[in-house]
Amino acid sequence: MKKIDVFRIEMSSPDDVRGLRGLIDDGSIDPASIVAVLGKTEGNGCVNDFTRGLSTLAFRRLISDATGWSEDEVSKKVAFVMSGGTEGVMSPHATVFCSKEAPGEATAEKTLAVSSGFTREFLPEEQGTMAVVDECRRVTLELMEKAGIEDPADVHFVQIKCPLLTSERIADAKERGFEVVTHDTYESMGYNRGASALGVALALGELEDGSVTDESICADWSLYSKVASTSAGVELLNCEIILMGNSADFDSDFTIGHSVMMDGIDLAAVIESLVNAGMDVVGVPTADQQKKIVNVFAKAEASSTGYVRGRRNTMHTDSDINHTRHARASVGGVISAVVGDPMIYVSGGAEHQGPDGGGPVASIIER
Amino acid sequence: MKKIDVFRIEMSSPDDVRGLRGLIDDGSIDPASIVAVLGKTEGNGCVNDFTRGLSTLAFRRLISDATGWSEDEVSKKVAFVMSGGTEGVMSPHATVFCSKEAPGEATAEKTLAVSSGFTREFLPEEQGTMAVVDECRRVTLELMEKAGIEDPADVHFVQIKCPLLTSERIADAKERGFEVVTHDTYESMGYNRGASALGVALALGELEDGSVTDESICADWSLYSKVASTSAGVELLNCEIILMGNSADFDSDFTIGHSVMMDGIDLAAVIESLVNAGMDVVGVPTADQQKKIVNVFAKAEASSTGYVRGRRNTMHTDSDINHTRHARASVGGVISAVVGDPMIYVSGGAEHQGPDGGGPVASIIER
Amino acid sequence: MKKIDVFRIEMSSPDDVRGLRGLIDDGSIDPASIVAVLGKTEGNGCVNDFTRGLSTLAFRRLISDATGWSEDEVSKKVAFVMSGGTEGVMSPHATVFCSKEAPGEATAEKTLAVSSGFTREFLPEEQGTMAVVDECRRVTLELMEKAGIEDPADVHFVQIKCPLLTSERIADAKERGFEVVTHDTYESMGYNRGASALGVALALGELEDGSVTDESICADWSLYSKVASTSAGVELLNCEIILMGNSADFDSDFTIGHSVMMDGIDLAAVIESLVNAGMDVVGVPTADQQKKIVNVFAKAEASSTGYVRGRRNTMHTDSDINHTRHARASVGGVISAVVGDPMIYVSGGAEHQGPDGGGPVASIIER
Amino acid sequence: MKKIDVFRIEMSSPDDVRGLRGLIDDGSIDPASIVAVLGKTEGNGCVNDFTRGLSTLAFRRLISDATGWSEDEVSKKVAFVMSGGTEGVMSPHATVFCSKEAPGEATAEKTLAVSSGFTREFLPEEQGTMAVVDECRRVTLELMEKAGIEDPADVHFVQIKCPLLTSERIADAKERGFEVVTHDTYESMGYNRGASALGVALALGELEDGSVTDESICADWSLYSKVASTSAGVELLNCEIILMGNSADFDSDFTIGHSVMMDGIDLAAVIESLVNAGMDVVGVPTADQQKKIVNVFAKAEASSTGYVRGRRNTMHTDSDINHTRHARASVGGVISAVVGDPMIYVSGGAEHQGPDGGGPVASIIER
Repeated sequence: MKKIDVFRIEMSSPDDVRGLRGLIDDGSIDPASIVAVLGKTEGNGCVNDFTRGLSTLAFRRLISDATGWSEDEVSKKVAFVMSGGTEGVMSPHATVFCSKEAPGEATAEKTLAVSSGFTREFLPEEQGTMAVVDECRRVTLELMEKAGIEDPADVHFVQIKCPLLTSERIADAKERGFEVVTHDTYESMGYNRGASALGVALALGELEDGSVTDESICADWSLYSKVASTSAGVELLNCEIILMGNSADFDSDFTIGHSVMMDGIDLAAVIESLVNAGMDVVGVPTADQQKKIVNVFAKAEASSTGYVRGRRNTMHTDSDINHTRHARASVGGVISAVVGDPMIYVSGGAEHQGPDGGGPVASIIER
Repeated sequence: MKKIDVFRIEMSSPDDVRGLRGLIDDGSIDPASIVAVLGKTEGNGCVNDFTRGLSTLAFRRLISDATGWSEDEVSKKVAFVMSGGTEGVMSPHATVFCSKEAPGEATAEKTLAVSSGFTREFLPEEQGTMAVVDECRRVTLELMEKAGIEDPADVHFVQIKCPLLTSERIADAKERGFEVVTHDTYESMGYNRGASALGVALALGELEDGSVTDESICADWSLYSKVASTSAGVELLNCEIILMGNSADFDSDFTIGHSVMMDGIDLAAVIESLVNAGMDVVGVPTADQQKKIVNVFAKAEASSTGYVRGRRNTMHTDSDINHTRHARASVGGVISAVVGDPMIYVSGGAEHQGPDGGGPVASIIER
Repeated sequence: MKKIDVFRIEMSSPDDVRGLRGLIDDGSIDPASIVAVLGKTEGNGCVNDFTRGLSTLAFRRLISDATGWSEDEVSKKVAFVMSGGTEGVMSPHATVFCSKEAPGEATAEKTLAVSSGFTREFLPEEQGTMAVVDECRRVTLELMEKAGIEDPADVHFVQIKCPLLTSERIADAKERGFEVVTHDTYESMGYNRGASALGVALALGELEDGSVTDESICADWSLYSKVASTSAGVELLNCEIILMGNSADFDSDFTIGHSVMMDGIDLAAVIESLVNAGMDVVGVPTADQQKKIVNVFAKAEASSTGYVRGRRNTMHTDSDINHTRHARASVGGVISAVVGDPMIYVSGGAEHQGPDGGGPVASIIER
Repeated sequence: MKKIDVFRIEMSSPDDVRGLRGLIDDGSIDPASIVAVLGKTEGNGCVNDFTRGLSTLAFRRLISDATGWSEDEVSKKVAFVMSGGTEGVMSPHATVFCSKEAPGEATAEKTLAVSSGFTREFLPEEQGTMAVVDECRRVTLELMEKAGIEDPADVHFVQIKCPLLTSERIADAKERGFEVVTHDTYESMGYNRGASALGVALALGELEDGSVTDESICADWSLYSKVASTSAGVELLNCEIILMGNSADFDSDFTIGHSVMMDGIDLAAVIESLVNAGMDVVGVPTADQQKKIVNVFAKAEASSTGYVRGRRNTMHTDSDINHTRHARASVGGVISAVVGDPMIYVSGGAEHQGPDGGGPVASIIER
């Protein structure tokens, strides 16, 4: 049997790793058991957000120091997925997942299983194309096996960090005679997020084989995954993937459940994700129930129509604040209010992750 | 007997008054009965937000055209309170209040009463001082009488539009040898919002006579009103006040109730405001109940500590987005999610309006 | 003979028309002689900039009051081109052009001639297409004739205000079964600016007949005008055009000249525009020469490559500030420094107006 | 004799140190000779700008790797001053200063001398007070001696990196019963920049002993240094100081000169700094002269009045973009245009550095 431990750690800045260091120092965490660090950092979450890279650097160095592994080795063993943007009440933090052997015997009960892995690096011209889709699909299937999950229905959240195009990378492709999917660096984030999510959807059978082509990416919004959550960053060239689900191979103290927010104010879906994780919620969670919620992970985006429930909003027409920032702030408020805690994870830009304007939401709770 | 009608009208831009024109044209609204227009416009809600002025101009002109009154006359009869900022899912709109004679007899039941009025204009050096406090207090008391409300407990929302300092106004005071409360134009918004709110608190007996001085304004946060909602704008020099409550002199189809959000994720307070208005909510409102909600009015602000429920947020340290914009986006999400409708009213900057980081919330529902 | 008078008027807010009112009141300006108002207003210059509309509204009403014409009549006689964005040192202001009969006889000397006119309104699906190109071409030719200019080389600046797409307009086209050039409202500004400029280029013979197609717009950057300056705004559906040049039919106290900035720091081009207008500049203008400069009009944009003189900049990768705002701030600094006065006109987004990253610059000076 | 080498290195991101690594690898730079790295990084230059810290981290690690010194040792030997904000055309880069023994004999000619050093760390309650003033004064005097400069007139630029207050640091002071100069984290940057600059002014005799008190800081703008350039960052608690001047003890290939921009469009001062460095400029620098300019360092700020040369600007009333960002973009344009190169250094927030709205400007040129 294996067992997943989950720690939610507050950060006073993107490079603040004192929380994790404390847990290692007091023996709560064996640094060699860490499989993934999922962070919410306080940048703008857009192209020029360097808080993600800074945070990755700080956590990687800490784990390197604590384990004696080189930083390169750490990079190959631990997935660092840093998502920028803590607009509104959201609180910068990291969720650290540790995987270790547990003494117990296998039982019928499925509990939290987490696995992490990596695709190969992508060339600029491959970004946002089927190359990304195919690699993410391949690795997602590997990670299911690694987590002892056979039924795709037991996969509840697949978090991917994917790359983005920069002016330099675009120029590099051009020099070598290749064309990139878009010359707009900000837009390239969406293409990569979308392609990664479609890879998950194919892996889990949410979409049929052959249903996705280069042309579908960021074009056919009817294609989407209900559990993929993808986030782009300037600090990497491959995809880092964290898969979360429930598995009978694991005897963890936690379970996970998910639902899909149909739009940014879908309060019922947030509650449903808790119910699906096994919490018996009537109305909204009680204070006691709130204490058992470890974290909620969700994707947020402005609907492409500019409307929510038939009401116009200004997320797409506000030229001062990016629509991803509007969306995170608003959905972050909704989830924090349900959970009674603003230290939750909402990531922006939900291309092919849930329906247009909505997105997956997953909750980890104590059993 | 009198009667208040309330119309919530969507706006496709700050100067879009087609909705109100349609209601006048089809006879739903007698333009001469309009007492107040409370708008949520799509500017940044800060110093250089000219959408408020543009919207006021458009509505005033429409009512002038429809009534035959000069625009000056309209200004003296109708309170135009435009609050900038529709971050996140919030939808730009105006709530129009009409007051007319109703045939019925007085009953014991108290229903929605709305009155509006104006303070005198303030000199730059008076802005944000006791001059504003005293005038707002005086007019609030007048408006209670006008609305037939004797018990301050029947006042549920007092919306005030107050002025702000500009570089030009500061220079004007200086030339005449006077000092202003602050040289920071953005900060002046807070001083005026705070002073206006304290005037309401004194009028309603929430604070004792003599408890407020120039020194308390934007300094002693223990002093606050639970029903004042104040908003600053560059487009006026006096305060425009809309008072809402329940009165036995009115036979309206609506009632109003309020509560106080203790912080930006106080879901319970939003629901309590509905319950206090007379709605029997268990858990969250049902779809049928949501249809009976006419509008919800709330104030939002970043707590001065930088923390909500012990969790750090970045509203005050984000130098790209003003904290008022963060706060509106987040609280707008929370209320929209409860109400199932993003066309609600959240105004930013809650100085002396509710506790630090929180703010009043009032709901108008159909009886 | 005719004569053009030019007045540069400071504005303390987008709706501040006191300067023009004063000039009318003291007899300096005959309101019936005004042919164009070219404003620089203090919005963000992007999609949700309502300062342009507010300013237009205020000037139109003033001229209506002063002439006794209805506002509709004013709209047909006076071109109001408001360009948003006064980043950096730039100072909000309006340049008012008046055209009147002058007693003198025609001489060989060509002096400032200004004419203004309007295209028809465009449907959403026509925006950013050849429909705009063709109309702008037609009206530019009309305006040359109106200004008594035969040689296209005597045209030095053609300022156009064009429309943009909004979510509502896009939805309207869709409902009627038509497709628009882009679903991104911000991008639609560029398409319309580009199409308008190409219309000017065709009219002036800068480009050959037939060289422009729908496919060239915002795609083939080798096509451009050296005198077109176009600006998009949400407040209109047609194009308003102001043409400036030198003509022997006019006996004005001013002349105009232009040059093309090859990039945003092309100091030499700014000086060349003064020289071309007739000023004898050695090095930089002297203080006396600076006093004779009435205004400088220029276009600014971030080069699509992300580089200026081989040096990377962050205008396109900054997700907090739009690249048009960066470009205006920087070019505004350059021109203000040459002129010794920050009350100059720099408009952003120079698609098909000068080379990539550059733009036309025109100077009006006293003879 | 000693000798200063100066290298200006482009950066493709805040952690891009490939340029410096290349110069070390090809023998151009002896890593042990580096005394200071002065960077211009692409963050917002305000409170939540983590690009400064990221860049410092990357350069420190590289030098540690290259020298074999621990990172702590590097920190004690090399001053890393990273200034955030490359608005407009400005190009992210680092200027690396190396100091080494030179074979020559002392001559009368003074050439570029650079020395660097550090103050002690400051407690939150000391930030922005005389504690900072006194320490900066002390270290500046030390650095003059270290650079072999006796005459303060030979000091042309003193660049200081100072700390700022964060919510956490403010809370820490409060817990220990101390009060900080301001609770506004953004404002704290100004207090520290101002205090540091006043320390320089005292050291150089620009201000008389005893003329500065806690009350003068960010209050009495008549007190200022003409050569101090200070920049605040979240990544340090002490001040790092780089002093530049001309000294007969150095036989460098470069000289430095300075002037003071009286406002943001003071083109003449930029040219004067070149002339003072020894360049014979007539009008504007020629292309050949431009090639001999190594870098220009300047401070920029919005004047507190909101006016430049009597013209209103909107830097202080724009609630979407911080005034420091406006100022950098505009002044960056001016200097780049003179120099013909956008890879120059303009830092924002010039409290007590030059007159209100202006700031020092220094140029290093090849002899």
